[in-house]
Amino acid sequence: MNEPRTYISPLVKVSAKAKMGARVRIDDFTIIHDNVVLGDDVTVESHCILGHPTPLANGQPLVIGSGAMIRSHSVFYEGSTFGAELITGHRVTVREKITAGKNLQIGTLCDFQGHTEFGDYVRTHSNVHIGQKSKIGNCVWIFPYSVLTNDPHPPSDGFLNGVVVEDYAVIATMTCILPGVRVGKRSLVGAHTLVSKDVEPDSVVAGVPGKKVCMTADIKLRDGSDRPAYPWMRHFHRGYPEDIVAAWKLEYGD
Amino acid sequence: MNEPRTYISPLVKVSAKAKMGARVRIDDFTIIHDNVVLGDDVTVESHCILGHPTPLANGQPLVIGSGAMIRSHSVFYEGSTFGAELITGHRVTVREKITAGKNLQIGTLCDFQGHTEFGDYVRTHSNVHIGQKSKIGNCVWIFPYSVLTNDPHPPSDGFLNGVVVEDYAVIATMTCILPGVRVGKRSLVGAHTLVSKDVEPDSVVAGVPGKKVCMTADIKLRDGSDRPAYPWMRHFHRGYPEDIVAAWKLEYGD
Amino acid sequence: MNEPRTYISPLVKVSAKAKMGARVRIDDFTIIHDNVVLGDDVTVESHCILGHPTPLANGQPLVIGSGAMIRSHSVFYEGSTFGAELITGHRVTVREKITAGKNLQIGTLCDFQGHTEFGDYVRTHSNVHIGQKSKIGNCVWIFPYSVLTNDPHPPSDGFLNGVVVEDYAVIATMTCILPGVRVGKRSLVGAHTLVSKDVEPDSVVAGVPGKKVCMTADIKLRDGSDRPAYPWMRHFHRGYPEDIVAAWKLEYGD
Repeated sequence: MNEPRTYISPLVKVSAKAKMGARVRIDDFTIIHDNVVLGDDVTVESHCILGHPTPLANGQPLVIGSGAMIRSHSVFYEGSTFGAELITGHRVTVREKITAGKNLQIGTLCDFQGHTEFGDYVRTHSNVHIGQKSKIGNCVWIFPYSVLTNDPHPPSDGFLNGVVVEDYAVIATMTCILPGVRVGKRSLVGAHTLVSKDVEPDSVVAGVPGKKVCMTADIKLRDGSDRPAYPWMRHFHRGYPEDIVAAWKLEYGD
Repeated sequence: MNEPRTYISPLVKVSAKAKMGARVRIDDFTIIHDNVVLGDDVTVESHCILGHPTPLANGQPLVIGSGAMIRSHSVFYEGSTFGAELITGHRVTVREKITAGKNLQIGTLCDFQGHTEFGDYVRTHSNVHIGQKSKIGNCVWIFPYSVLTNDPHPPSDGFLNGVVVEDYAVIATMTCILPGVRVGKRSLVGAHTLVSKDVEPDSVVAGVPGKKVCMTADIKLRDGSDRPAYPWMRHFHRGYPEDIVAAWKLEYGD
Repeated sequence: MNEPRTYISPLVKVSAKAKMGARVRIDDFTIIHDNVVLGDDVTVESHCILGHPTPLANGQPLVIGSGAMIRSHSVFYEGSTFGAELITGHRVTVREKITAGKNLQIGTLCDFQGHTEFGDYVRTHSNVHIGQKSKIGNCVWIFPYSVLTNDPHPPSDGFLNGVVVEDYAVIATMTCILPGVRVGKRSLVGAHTLVSKDVEPDSVVAGVPGKKVCMTADIKLRDGSDRPAYPWMRHFHRGYPEDIVAAWKLEYGD
């Protein structure tokens, strides 16, 4: 078996000024601009653009931590920084002034508008839109076609008020969160909900407009076991490292 | 007039291991991986990826039946099989373990997560998201920004419960269907609906959450004729073959 | 400093029949078909397709006015005409028979189905879907994941009835507008709304189905000033030319 090593397709355009770690792979028809720093073991699939120039980045580079997998047709602007083990779906669009912790997973077609903080182990499924000035905690889940807004009376300027999503919160499919709302720790927002006010920790909100319908502890697993489905950290561990899962067991049981 | 023949742009990357029928066309900046079988008369527009490798395909190829038209910037994984006359819009994303019948039409920006069965003559308009374990019948219509979910208490593992959409059902724009729901034969789901329970055949459901509002037979064509708009097979025939339309006339009248 | 001048990447495919103004820039992996007319100072980023052929264009060219910026991975069909200063986000899809005035701004992932008129200074944010036969006035705003529909009883043929959006109207995020609806001048449609009937001028509509909740004059700026947030032309001027802003001051005050 061959050891992995750096592979850069001849059918790409890669700036000589970009900084690359060891064992990087750049696939066909991809463009890497000047102001890019890739860690070790980063894979960039085909038809991507990394480090798309923008004056809004104030000269800051795009920094991609080690072990990243960026799938095809994705566009990352310069001026954002991602921790290790970033994973994206296809055709994501990610703008400037984002800082993200470890192992952010960005679904296919997601559209991140920039100026956002992400904690560790955040997962956004397909086609999630995150407006500027959002603040996302650790281990948050956001499901497809959800939108985090920021403008209380659009269009406006200088009034942007981002959404805050606290640790372990889950936002289900096709949900719209209004500006300035705080989605509390370990809460669950049901599918197709318009969230117009703060969601209290461990509660479940649903409807248009969203109203509290129960506590997450009231939702049982669909396996006849009568075990609670939340906090989800008790039964869902796929893709998290052992030390995190061990800490969850201590805090939340299993 | 020249007869059509095979054309492969010099600006592509096509594996010598891919199997191609007669009169195939592959446009610029497209990538065809090893594990791909294209029928006769298939067109693949520019900036596409066919046969994207995944271990989840268990080595199964991507099989595209004859007469397909795959529009630009689309990504198909290995491990799915499509009948003749597949037509896609631009930038569709289609994952592994899909089986589809004849003349599936996939709209621009659709995101099919894989592990799904489609009957014949299914049409999904733009930006439809189909979760794993869905099962779609024949002659179904799904309109833009609709999502078929599968996880009853997200995130979870081993509990996925896909949506079933029966023959001739119509799902209008911006609808979310909850896990395990069955959308009955010839039913109509109105726009911007959250479907949380089964939809009975020939009924119309709308709202958040969706409720039965009438039967499809109660909806009249907007032409002053007082003719019923459903079953739609009585008046809408564009794109279906003559034998299908003839069978509809026998079953549903005109 | 060098003067800007024409730059066409060597990694593109540009038809010799396409007509180009002065100081055009065409980036890597982009395709320009025959039937395209670009004005002066047009930039087309990488991985785009301009002038995608379609028989539905009846031979009409794609005309892009001067000063346009078309971002990466976008697809424009032949048969549409755009005024000066068109600006797009990434991966927009724009079909035939569109006419647009000055400075249309199209957000990332937008999907314009063609056969639509746009006035001047229209802005659509990310992922807006505009069905055929829509008619959009001047200075309209449409926010992410909104859909303008056109089919009163889908699927149907010959009954398409587009949406009309009048000058200065604002349509907030994740809104669905039903066929034939007129969204009145300076009105505001709230987020996550299903608009099923006409929206009167200067009114605010929200809910599923949408109902009038107040007049726009009842909404105050979130700055403690007690100033009204609408008409937005009183306080929001970014990106509009001075003569337009001066006219707004005369008509609406400041």
